[in-house]
Amino acid sequence: MTLNVVVAGLPKAVQGAADPDEGIWLTDEQRARITGVADEVWLEHLPVSALNAGRGPARPPHAIMVETSGSKPELDVEQGILTGAGLQQLMNPELRLLQSMSAGAEHLVSIIPDGVTLANASGVAANAIAETVIAGILADAKKLRQRWEDQRARRWRELPARELAGSVLTVLGTGNIGSRTAQVAQVLGMRTIGVNRRGNPVEGFDEVVATASLHEALGRSDYFLVAAPLTPETRGLIDADAVKAMKPGCWISNVARGAICDPAAIIDGLHSGQLRGALIDCHVQEPLPADDPLWSAPGAEVLPHDSHASQLLGDRQVDLFVDNLQRLVAGREFRNVVDLDRGY
Amino acid sequence: MTLNVVVAGLPKAVQGAADPDEGIWLTDEQRARITGVADEVWLEHLPVSALNAGRGPARPPHAIMVETSGSKPELDVEQGILTGAGLQQLMNPELRLLQSMSAGAEHLVSIIPDGVTLANASGVAANAIAETVIAGILADAKKLRQRWEDQRARRWRELPARELAGSVLTVLGTGNIGSRTAQVAQVLGMRTIGVNRRGNPVEGFDEVVATASLHEALGRSDYFLVAAPLTPETRGLIDADAVKAMKPGCWISNVARGAICDPAAIIDGLHSGQLRGALIDCHVQEPLPADDPLWSAPGAEVLPHDSHASQLLGDRQVDLFVDNLQRLVAGREFRNVVDLDRGY
Repeated sequence: MTLNVVVAGLPKAVQGAADPDEGIWLTDEQRARITGVADEVWLEHLPVSALNAGRGPARPPHAIMVETSGSKPELDVEQGILTGAGLQQLMNPELRLLQSMSAGAEHLVSIIPDGVTLANASGVAANAIAETVIAGILADAKKLRQRWEDQRARRWRELPARELAGSVLTVLGTGNIGSRTAQVAQVLGMRTIGVNRRGNPVEGFDEVVATASLHEALGRSDYFLVAAPLTPETRGLIDADAVKAMKPGCWISNVARGAICDPAAIIDGLHSGQLRGALIDCHVQEPLPADDPLWSAPGAEVLPHDSHASQLLGDRQVDLFVDNLQRLVAGREFRNVVDLDRGY
Repeated sequence: MTLNVVVAGLPKAVQGAADPDEGIWLTDEQRARITGVADEVWLEHLPVSALNAGRGPARPPHAIMVETSGSKPELDVEQGILTGAGLQQLMNPELRLLQSMSAGAEHLVSIIPDGVTLANASGVAANAIAETVIAGILADAKKLRQRWEDQRARRWRELPARELAGSVLTVLGTGNIGSRTAQVAQVLGMRTIGVNRRGNPVEGFDEVVATASLHEALGRSDYFLVAAPLTPETRGLIDADAVKAMKPGCWISNVARGAICDPAAIIDGLHSGQLRGALIDCHVQEPLPADDPLWSAPGAEVLPHDSHASQLLGDRQVDLFVDNLQRLVAGREFRNVVDLDRGY
């Protein structure tokens, strides 16, 4: 039996893509790895424009890997990204695996037919995102922004930079991103507190508390990272009350989903000084509008939802897909399966 | 017998000092720790101005801890720093230990009398400096400076940021700073190469080569850190030939002594693109003159010789001094002894 595989859409921020507009990015080596998972593999690496225009694949795929713009409520037409209609072209009774190229797949759960497993890309970008968060924490501690302003003014001035040892990092969400960030933070001498639904222990965290204790944890944190999936429970969880519960001068980062935080609460916190800094990668509206007050809030660092940017992204995405294809062939359980009820 | 102890001069970049101009910085807790090393301890925490004016301590000290501006060839009068004459006030036949508050003590070796051990502060600032170097490496990989310029312009633009995994960091000098930086770099997935006199293995390094192989190591390095003591062997070691030997686009940092690098070679390398970036904390002339071309060289990041800035500096300095005082009392070997012939 031939395994029919379709790849369509460009992983967000992948580097070295052959044709970003068409979502063509697999290298010859990556193609060979995918076609090597079974004796007979039919791989179609389809242009997004064709699918969005309603022209489907030559064969009904058993497995597809797609970028569907995980950060948006609607599946918009965009560079290298499938529309909802384009995605529908790939649905067929033979389909067994829908591998998303995004960690957040909450918007896909409603369109997954019976018998199809939705797998997310959780973990693919975890290390790159963790590096970006640690970069932000260190930039804050070492006052890099102020240093570069001093340099621009040719000002020789020592600054009271901080050492991280003994500082507390709390992470909402103890998945791949949160856990990896915490592991690096521990090596840097920080104390790490994880927050998850039940307070279950996770590697990298000195302590894990249940979501009910979030405010208490925020009260003793110097740094706070939002790295949780967007669910009904987390939507709007970081509101004005949460900001008020923080230790004064806390630094916050959101690399998950914009809607977990109330942007106004973050901006108010920055203006009042309750928040010392904020590295915000994910926004309720993307691109962030030019007149959004976050751009110029004191201590705000705006990232254009690319904290996961990495030259290794494509390879890691293919690693995961190949692993899941091998599981499909062998009849084993998939990795990164999304619970359609919980949404992550 | 009473142990007579003198502390004079302000550790560079110490935070929370009571009177920086007079070099008065010990907290009550730190004083108590020093006076607790023996049954009878006479501690004088002397104003720098008094010593520099020729007024010595009430009792001839057995041990002194002094800041003598380790980064300068001459002992200049400066805020909280002893002059050579001020230091002479503390010399006496009972003196056994001169504890410097600087890691570089090459300028002190010529004034150490027989019977006196010179100990440097190597290690006290290692973790803070390593954090600053890692901050610089991550800021480079994540393109933070460009991101902040984008933010200033309210420009939403993804950048091809890098992940550190697989990058190579070479460190000249495998002491406390180099080793600690390498350990963190390893956790971040970097390959680490150390360079020391004989190529002796050191913790944190995947590989250590002898100084003779420096250029070869530079040819395969993405990041290069200078963390070696200034000695006749290292003076001017990073010259135009070394820059030419580097892998094109290498990033360099110097947190050791300015004179190890030829500033013109660094600046030329930045302008030609041979060097992608340079985080330079130590300069041949300090403060760096306002018309120095390093300030505006492309990719240059100028630090005012405070990469070691940390709220923990005072405590760590006292930790070391207390340890050496306990060794003095017990007649054991001192820690951080400077070899007066080698100069470090």
